[in-house]
Amino acid sequence: MKAFLDEDFLLSSETAKWLYHEYAKKLPIVDYHCHINPQEIYENRRFENITQLWLEADHYKWRLMRSNGVEEDYITGKASDWEKFEQWAKTLELAIGNPLYHWSHLELKRYFGYQGHLCGETAKEVWELCNEKLKGEEFSARGIIERSKVQLLCTTDDPADTLEWHERLKEEESFKVQVLPTWRPDRALSLEKTDYLDYLQKLEKASGEKIASYNDLLEALRIRMDFFAEMGCCLSDHGLAYVYYAPAAGQQIEEIFAKRLAGELPSKEEEAQFKTAFLIAMGKEYCRRGWAMQLHFGVKRDNSRRVFSKLGADAGIDCISNYTPSDQLVSFLDSLDITRELPKTILYSLNPVDNAAIGTVIGCFQTSCTPGKIQQGSAWWFNDHKAGMQEQMTSLANLGVLGNFIGMLTDSRSFVSYTRHEYFRRILCDLMGGWVEKGEYPADEKSLERIIKGICYNNAVRYFGWEKA
Amino acid sequence: MKAFLDEDFLLSSETAKWLYHEYAKKLPIVDYHCHINPQEIYENRRFENITQLWLEADHYKWRLMRSNGVEEDYITGKASDWEKFEQWAKTLELAIGNPLYHWSHLELKRYFGYQGHLCGETAKEVWELCNEKLKGEEFSARGIIERSKVQLLCTTDDPADTLEWHERLKEEESFKVQVLPTWRPDRALSLEKTDYLDYLQKLEKASGEKIASYNDLLEALRIRMDFFAEMGCCLSDHGLAYVYYAPAAGQQIEEIFAKRLAGELPSKEEEAQFKTAFLIAMGKEYCRRGWAMQLHFGVKRDNSRRVFSKLGADAGIDCISNYTPSDQLVSFLDSLDITRELPKTILYSLNPVDNAAIGTVIGCFQTSCTPGKIQQGSAWWFNDHKAGMQEQMTSLANLGVLGNFIGMLTDSRSFVSYTRHEYFRRILCDLMGGWVEKGEYPADEKSLERIIKGICYNNAVRYFGWEKA
Amino acid sequence: MKAFLDEDFLLSSETAKWLYHEYAKKLPIVDYHCHINPQEIYENRRFENITQLWLEADHYKWRLMRSNGVEEDYITGKASDWEKFEQWAKTLELAIGNPLYHWSHLELKRYFGYQGHLCGETAKEVWELCNEKLKGEEFSARGIIERSKVQLLCTTDDPADTLEWHERLKEEESFKVQVLPTWRPDRALSLEKTDYLDYLQKLEKASGEKIASYNDLLEALRIRMDFFAEMGCCLSDHGLAYVYYAPAAGQQIEEIFAKRLAGELPSKEEEAQFKTAFLIAMGKEYCRRGWAMQLHFGVKRDNSRRVFSKLGADAGIDCISNYTPSDQLVSFLDSLDITRELPKTILYSLNPVDNAAIGTVIGCFQTSCTPGKIQQGSAWWFNDHKAGMQEQMTSLANLGVLGNFIGMLTDSRSFVSYTRHEYFRRILCDLMGGWVEKGEYPADEKSLERIIKGICYNNAVRYFGWEKA
Repeated sequence: MKAFLDEDFLLSSETAKWLYHEYAKKLPIVDYHCHINPQEIYENRRFENITQLWLEADHYKWRLMRSNGVEEDYITGKASDWEKFEQWAKTLELAIGNPLYHWSHLELKRYFGYQGHLCGETAKEVWELCNEKLKGEEFSARGIIERSKVQLLCTTDDPADTLEWHERLKEEESFKVQVLPTWRPDRALSLEKTDYLDYLQKLEKASGEKIASYNDLLEALRIRMDFFAEMGCCLSDHGLAYVYYAPAAGQQIEEIFAKRLAGELPSKEEEAQFKTAFLIAMGKEYCRRGWAMQLHFGVKRDNSRRVFSKLGADAGIDCISNYTPSDQLVSFLDSLDITRELPKTILYSLNPVDNAAIGTVIGCFQTSCTPGKIQQGSAWWFNDHKAGMQEQMTSLANLGVLGNFIGMLTDSRSFVSYTRHEYFRRILCDLMGGWVEKGEYPADEKSLERIIKGICYNNAVRYFGWEKA
Repeated sequence: MKAFLDEDFLLSSETAKWLYHEYAKKLPIVDYHCHINPQEIYENRRFENITQLWLEADHYKWRLMRSNGVEEDYITGKASDWEKFEQWAKTLELAIGNPLYHWSHLELKRYFGYQGHLCGETAKEVWELCNEKLKGEEFSARGIIERSKVQLLCTTDDPADTLEWHERLKEEESFKVQVLPTWRPDRALSLEKTDYLDYLQKLEKASGEKIASYNDLLEALRIRMDFFAEMGCCLSDHGLAYVYYAPAAGQQIEEIFAKRLAGELPSKEEEAQFKTAFLIAMGKEYCRRGWAMQLHFGVKRDNSRRVFSKLGADAGIDCISNYTPSDQLVSFLDSLDITRELPKTILYSLNPVDNAAIGTVIGCFQTSCTPGKIQQGSAWWFNDHKAGMQEQMTSLANLGVLGNFIGMLTDSRSFVSYTRHEYFRRILCDLMGGWVEKGEYPADEKSLERIIKGICYNNAVRYFGWEKA
Repeated sequence: MKAFLDEDFLLSSETAKWLYHEYAKKLPIVDYHCHINPQEIYENRRFENITQLWLEADHYKWRLMRSNGVEEDYITGKASDWEKFEQWAKTLELAIGNPLYHWSHLELKRYFGYQGHLCGETAKEVWELCNEKLKGEEFSARGIIERSKVQLLCTTDDPADTLEWHERLKEEESFKVQVLPTWRPDRALSLEKTDYLDYLQKLEKASGEKIASYNDLLEALRIRMDFFAEMGCCLSDHGLAYVYYAPAAGQQIEEIFAKRLAGELPSKEEEAQFKTAFLIAMGKEYCRRGWAMQLHFGVKRDNSRRVFSKLGADAGIDCISNYTPSDQLVSFLDSLDITRELPKTILYSLNPVDNAAIGTVIGCFQTSCTPGKIQQGSAWWFNDHKAGMQEQMTSLANLGVLGNFIGMLTDSRSFVSYTRHEYFRRILCDLMGGWVEKGEYPADEKSLERIIKGICYNNAVRYFGWEKA
């Protein structure tokens, strides 16, 4: 029996161990997609206790606690931080097989040096240990990021955002980690939302452009994209129910937008038409600027109105939508490809059964502009666990060139989630090591080194153009 | 090489063996969902031969025999019981990897003490051995149930059913096993069926309530639910093509129902609207009464009209429907959750690719009323095999708190299918044991014992409120 | 560590090795579905170099090269054969885990005796070795087929095809391998295509039947089917987006067809109605003739208009369509089954998530006409890899009688792809061997031999009626 979470955690063969310890472990991190608040980096936020660090904003953990029958007071409510932590510890004990079990213990071990396991019985001991350690400078936001060997990270930002904190961080001599913005115009896309017009006002203010037409909207966004580019942005992100393809004439889109400006909500069909046009327009801009386009889809959000009315978005009440028509996805990509305006694109579906479909879709639109121009993104959100990663990478290997995969990102709001890169790297090394051990790939050190280093670090750096950085 | 079906069957690590033999094996069975005929329990049915016991009503076996090219005469027709058994033996021999291979041999070993394996050559030997043993008292319906360490079982019953046999069994001093009814109002829901009006007459008679409106229908059902509750019912069940969400005004539902009373069949849209309203009304009643709601969906039934016209329903001609819209499922649950009337709910899809979607849906609606209030049901029907159970439990572990899972049920018409609980427990122990051996969960005896005992027995007892029983 | 691709490649247990080396390896091949050009067999084509053999028509390889950022010139363009091969070698090196990695090396080892592995560094060495060997007689089209122990192969042919090369091959005394045509009337089905009327003219010419109505179309096809039957055809094939069920009256179909003859394209609904009627009519003909019907679905083809406009069909720009409604599939099969006109049928979906649905659908329509009358086809195209085959066979085993599976086909345009049968047989033996080793099936030599020989050879021979051949 292997000891719990020992140094060869998840590494089940000698080749796997060698690949991990010799290559993967030593590489720095470029975390090209996360939800960290740049203000907290700038202000170098400190945490009073482990509950602040772990439970304040982590809707993965909230969800699990609710699944254990914990009262909402002990999750997002008025209970004390210690009481919340204790409930979390009791929940985790029962969550055998859950990635949060692994992540939490990796964090406890790597950042806090805790060697045991968290459960109801050990909750107090862990609480005290962590809170004591959190007093140290190495547990400030910047301290954690630096300890984690992060070279660069991309936050997620609205076009109307001032990027004030990115700007200040750039000027900060003492902090060497690059913090770049990511362009995420979800609010500009979502004309079905009731607060859409309020948002347009924000965007007008940020861009200095009056928005009286769809064309104006695009112009305002272009102005903001210029600014984002100045701040180092080179990738975008879209959160979608599914990838739309409902083509309509330009005049029709203007009419739908005009109607919306007049206060009327769009029909389902108009919504799909608007979003199709909007995403195509964005795609063309990204292509022109050399930005990558991330499409995150297959999600149905904010599902319990009861909880949403109290806690708002990102409250742990989202789920997979199994309506992800591959035919529309293909037509969307083709509509950009036909005019040579398809940007580098990364597809993430929240529905793991889409792995094979996506793996075949990306293969249709590859060109020589860069190896692996169209990517299947790393196992995402609910799929971000051992089985999910194994399945995504096995599927990718079966259907394409795994060696060009740009690898892992945290997608996280937390400062201690960089251990997910370790988790990913171990799983990657185990998978590849297993193939070598079984005689399915030769024990060719040079090729293996190149592939491992590529997936863990080099490919992303090349893909996003950070070599010069 | 391990011997065929030895005592460590399916247990591939030392921890797995320990968990199974030390904890799982020793626990009694609560079989909270089956299709056993309570009359046969009351009358303590005897079986003349193994064909009566195995092949009389088992459409899983019929299906497999047809797949082997066996003539229908030798399946459901006029051939002798021996001839049918021989054909079954020859079929089973070729069904390597099929769960029926495992189930059949578990039954032969556990109940009949047969140590060999059934195939064309051994058919006669097995036939004779079994038929001899079937003469013993321990092979009566009650004998088998008691030998199987069943404490409680829930049958599946129509609202118009008198529950006569449940009533008599309750009074039977000599039989200690609790036999509870389950409320399954599929016929009351299915207004698209041509015999719907006949059914309403049955329901009128059973409830004493004249059904002249949709409101009357609900009232009649409430009257029957009161009676079912008296008989110990605490869970319901629904068999659905998919989980509907097509909301309509109450008045519209009354009109659809009035049309149906007048003999007119509903449109597809009206059917979905009626079913949505009906299921919401049922859900509210279940919540009020503390009953659990089981939703079984993703099924297309009675697919060969050729066979159906001869054999009727449950003839082995059903299949998975891959139309199971997660968006409608979510909206349905939310429509009950928003008024705090969502009962304890167990979701079962026949389509195994729904595992991940369901795992994320249940997480949206958990509350503190009980740990794991919303459950993903155990791998069901066509998925009730080693891979299916592993996938369902791995998915559940990845996405929620496996430790709160209420575990296995037989879903069976057969008296000897309790070995499926053994099958399940072995697979569970192997999965958890594997995680421990690989260092993915600590070898914490107390936690492991609690989780195993919970999933095999305690969780269901707590969830359904049978502690006092 | 096992050596790369040694004699026990993919065989991870002693029983697996025994099953493969004792039984599977020794059996001849019947390749009942491929895309080899019969003219090239007749003319006994020779290959000047490995690029001609490997890269001239293999869109699997093109796709992978594009995914590696290779310029189109080096794939399908004007670069030299050596330059193309070098790019392929460099691509393959990074394609760890891809079936092309295994297939290519199996081909290099089995046909060319190359013991190393192909990568950028070894490209020249492999190029020279192969080109030298290709000069030998054993590398002519017929030489390769005979060395591969192929007994019989079925090409894929249009109804308007003259079958001239099949005819000539039949008369060729010196070539013992049977080369049979397969009936694939995709062009006759596809009335939505702009060149449909051109095609009808070809069909008129081939059949000698004037096509002025839908009825005439069917008559012309019947005439051609008679001819195909004379040439030994006993199976058909259809390439479909999905399996349609949109029933319409015969008169309606005539009207849709008349409209098309008049030059008007059908609506989406009319297209589905026409295709439904056409496929039902074909099915009835197949049943009458004892032909098997292959349905290949779940595909979206020619997705990049940019590439398609240059290279046409089969250019490596196809993908999985995830719209494969199981309900329509069932209704389609039932509509033939109800009149006892459902032929032997083989279902292949390109979407691997359909495995379970298909496994349950086939079970609904089995009859005693032959064991396994309705089959799930072997893992197809994008799924034709280790994981895909394991999943397809595990699913089949879980849901039906694996012992009746008709097994592997190459589906290939290449003369050296017969090693895919070896690949399949190894995976099959490993799967079955594993079950035996784990005690899930007894070590019954006779049954295991029968099952292995059946799946690798005997079942297909019996199913297609080639015993007399």
